[in-house]
Amino acid sequence: MTPTAERKKKGPAPDPCPERLARLRERMEEGGVSAVLVQSPENRRYFSGFKAPDLMLTESSGCLIITLKGQNLLLTDPRYAEAAKAEAPAFEILVYRSGVPELLKKEGLDLGELSYEPRMMTVDFLGRLFAVLGKNAFKPLPFNLGDFRVVKSPEELALVRRAVDITEKALDRLWNELEPGYSENAASLFLENNFRLLGAEGPAFPSIVASGRNAALPHAEPSNKKIGKNEMVVIDIGSRYKGYCSDMTRTFMPFKPADWQKRIYAVVKEAQRRALEALGPGKKGSEVDAVARSYIASEGYGEYFNHSLGHGVGLLVHEEPRLSTSSQDELKPGSLVTVEPGIYLPGKGGVRLEQLCLITEKGREVLNKNRLYYDYHLDAA
Amino acid sequence: MTPTAERKKKGPAPDPCPERLARLRERMEEGGVSAVLVQSPENRRYFSGFKAPDLMLTESSGCLIITLKGQNLLLTDPRYAEAAKAEAPAFEILVYRSGVPELLKKEGLDLGELSYEPRMMTVDFLGRLFAVLGKNAFKPLPFNLGDFRVVKSPEELALVRRAVDITEKALDRLWNELEPGYSENAASLFLENNFRLLGAEGPAFPSIVASGRNAALPHAEPSNKKIGKNEMVVIDIGSRYKGYCSDMTRTFMPFKPADWQKRIYAVVKEAQRRALEALGPGKKGSEVDAVARSYIASEGYGEYFNHSLGHGVGLLVHEEPRLSTSSQDELKPGSLVTVEPGIYLPGKGGVRLEQLCLITEKGREVLNKNRLYYDYHLDAA
Repeated sequence: MTPTAERKKKGPAPDPCPERLARLRERMEEGGVSAVLVQSPENRRYFSGFKAPDLMLTESSGCLIITLKGQNLLLTDPRYAEAAKAEAPAFEILVYRSGVPELLKKEGLDLGELSYEPRMMTVDFLGRLFAVLGKNAFKPLPFNLGDFRVVKSPEELALVRRAVDITEKALDRLWNELEPGYSENAASLFLENNFRLLGAEGPAFPSIVASGRNAALPHAEPSNKKIGKNEMVVIDIGSRYKGYCSDMTRTFMPFKPADWQKRIYAVVKEAQRRALEALGPGKKGSEVDAVARSYIASEGYGEYFNHSLGHGVGLLVHEEPRLSTSSQDELKPGSLVTVEPGIYLPGKGGVRLEQLCLITEKGREVLNKNRLYYDYHLDAA
Repeated sequence: MTPTAERKKKGPAPDPCPERLARLRERMEEGGVSAVLVQSPENRRYFSGFKAPDLMLTESSGCLIITLKGQNLLLTDPRYAEAAKAEAPAFEILVYRSGVPELLKKEGLDLGELSYEPRMMTVDFLGRLFAVLGKNAFKPLPFNLGDFRVVKSPEELALVRRAVDITEKALDRLWNELEPGYSENAASLFLENNFRLLGAEGPAFPSIVASGRNAALPHAEPSNKKIGKNEMVVIDIGSRYKGYCSDMTRTFMPFKPADWQKRIYAVVKEAQRRALEALGPGKKGSEVDAVARSYIASEGYGEYFNHSLGHGVGLLVHEEPRLSTSSQDELKPGSLVTVEPGIYLPGKGGVRLEQLCLITEKGREVLNKNRLYYDYHLDAA
């Protein structure tokens, strides 16, 4: 039997949502929560499978209501009704025309208190819910729905690995053809095209291709600037595969670097090595951040590393756990985090190197398989 | 003097923000508002020029505080500090590391009451602001900042026209090469590539290329499905140029249609003609919606037109004014609206035709210049 035949025989993967909903209901019971309103697109997708783009606010593409008693409701507008039925088999689909508050009133659902996500609920929407159903019908959820997504299942990890693989293949293709005179825009278009040609939905976030002085802006937008001959190029990219993100950064330096370039590259590289070594289960986010940050500071570049060390990755490109100066997140096996130290010298340039890592029982696994160092003149050992 | 020389002589366009801020302060004075917190990325960009992507929430990329007394503050995190300085010359840049509430406390700004956008302010963020500065320091803004963006300036219209032109050129290129066997994904990739090659930043929203049965889903995602021989293809696309969106829909039907296809195409086409005729200054959104909706209903397809007739377009792809059954928006000269009736027959297919229109003093101008009807067999008269 060929591998393909075997894959076919298995049929489609089973719906992961019932297991996720069971875990959610356990937590609801513990927390005294009778019903949850899920507005965030990533949690909506996680618990239901519903993929609608988050083009607009809650009331455009929809929300979930999950009750302790066992109801799974997906409220959406008519444009998404057909897709919702196909994507969210565990849910009953309710279609609204005027709005969510009006639908809730009309249906007269027995929800008890409906608990909402305080990080998603706006003052305006809550006011409209209050006006229709009264203030006492609502309370903030006493836990974060994002917590359920922190530890990834093997199926989720497989999707992230695929997104990583696509991103690396695209980057290698660029490395093979990038040369001075290529514009930042052309390079980002090349990368995003290759994401799509390789099977991804597209970029997980706006691609960064920043050369020369632009590389001193950690979140630069690609411009029509042509890449100059001795300019380092910071490339921070990720593809999205079946909803799951990847995120990696490389700094291209395909020339004999000046001393300052060589030096910041080497410091970032060593900071990363140390941070990766420090990464493991039970570690606190702030501890790992401190390893990289204190090393960079000891080399005299403290003020030029002006962002946090890393973040979780999954259905969102930035999620828990965080590696930052203030993060109290404790790393758990099965979590994903980026490790991305950088040094940015205003007006001159910058370096960032980013790996995506899985926390394992014993330490960490770097998911990136391609080279970390795109240069000709530094030792990659 | 060549046109190019003339353009060069003019230099860069003047910063439109001071004029916008003056209008905002007039309204603040009328409304008794001493300071405004601007969180929405589109309003942030409109009043300051700051372009940071809205990847994450307010505290990641930043917010504005505009006081009646004359302060223009842009609060952002260190990653965006350099870009903020370059893009928002009328603003003083304040950089936070821990968060907005902590920065406000530290700076001890004399803001009086700070008025926030209730559609953007989350319960969580407001709670954190309250915790640091007290409940009495905040109130909801008594008007919508989006109102300022409803009537477009000539400069804004020029950017939208450019986005429309790019979108049409890309669509014509696709029309020249689309044939059965092409997948929906390949077609959307082709279109988005051409947006970029023609100078746009990219798509203004996820492109829709929906063929055959998929065309019955108003917001279908492009799939690997190959376009079949006698399938209508609904293509809903728009490019973004310097922040400004375009939005158009065509239904390709390059074959001799079956009776049902011909019929729904003709009904949508006539609904559009009638709605365009009804469009003009002083009209209410619901009135114009009713013209298309009642015609489609009178032809027996009322239940298959399951979304609103249109919406404003600008820095957001969906903004005020709305053309919907409940819209009380009164159309004003200088506003942009889409007119996009559709009929969707579940399991069979659908048709949508969308034009982008400028409301003029006397009526309307359709910004689209290319053909509305991509078919070989229907009379386009």
